Amino acid sequence: MLDAVREELGERGYDELTLEAVAARAGVHRATVYRRWRDVGGLLADLFEATSDDDWQPQDTGSLHGDLAALNHENQAALTARPSIATALIAASFRSEEAALGVRRLWEDRYARCEVIVSRAVRRGELPPDTDARRLLIAATAPLYHQLVLLRTPADPDLPDEAARTAVLAASAGAFVKSPPVGDA
Amino acid sequence: MLDAVREELGERGYDELTLEAVAARAGVHRATVYRRWRDVGGLLADLFEATSDDDWQPQDTGSLHGDLAALNHENQAALTARPSIATALIAASFRSEEAALGVRRLWEDRYARCEVIVSRAVRRGELPPDTDARRLLIAATAPLYHQLVLLRTPADPDLPDEAARTAVLAASAGAFVKSPPVGDA
Repeated sequence: MLDAVREELGERGYDELTLEAVAARAGVHRATVYRRWRDVGGLLADLFEATSDDDWQPQDTGSLHGDLAALNHENQAALTARPSIATALIAASFRSEEAALGVRRLWEDRYARCEVIVSRAVRRGELPPDTDARRLLIAATAPLYHQLVLLRTPADPDLPDEAARTAVLAASAGAFVKSPPVGDA
Repeated sequence: MLDAVREELGERGYDELTLEAVAARAGVHRATVYRRWRDVGGLLADLFEATSDDDWQPQDTGSLHGDLAALNHENQAALTARPSIATALIAASFRSEEAALGVRRLWEDRYARCEVIVSRAVRRGELPPDTDARRLLIAATAPLYHQLVLLRTPADPDLPDEAARTAVLAASAGAFVKSPPVGDA
């Protein structure tokens, strides 16, 4: 099934991707495919999950900058692969509630796994203990998605490192320290 | 035509948006619509451009943080409007080359107009003169698009200010200073 989706995506592109074409290519009965997935978005979300490594962990390079840059390089590779299941899933998320939920669930899982990058940096003394990991991770990774997925500029080989460096500088300047509870003087 | 698109988007959503339905609602002949726009993406790109204020300039609040926060608040409003033509155009950009080109052209224009935010900050002494305006602007605005368009989290009222503040802190720490030409010692 996965091979069928990859081949369809590669040959005909995302917009032509239908459950029917995938079923035909995989030699599976149409009804079976429709029973299992409501739409292309559901199928893509499932496949993306199935092809993701269950044991995936962010690299431990020994520094906050290194860890964030490695993460950005991995993301850049996934988004510029041809065909890219990640990009197809994002595209489907605008058209299918299943895919939108899938995207949200997958990113949630990915960011949760990446929080260890921040806790390691706190342990090393690179970051204050009350750093908001999620905000830091989004700041470090968002520019890359912005350029590749929204602005559609060609992949910039320097961007993974630059975006990581920007986030580290902002973090060191206290950008992601959690605000004290309201009421504190 | 614009009203017809807005109504179609509001009632049936982006995925059901077709040139045919828009033509019918606007009371325009199908062939006329197809002659003018090749697909829904082309129509959305045109409309987005037509509804954009030709004289749009970023607000001049007197500080870099204020200018970036104001920009993010405007973007957040455009992306959370129901229906949002901006979001429909982004969705269409995955399916239509016209829309992808339109998105790229519109964002290019928008970021170019925003460079004055950076030059004003340089003049005020808030930023070093060799700051890369585009990189700073993308860092300041990307987290908002990331959360609203890709992660599909509900709009966070604090995010426009936070993302602006993060970019200012990174900029003050030298994150967006252009690298010296290769060969400089």
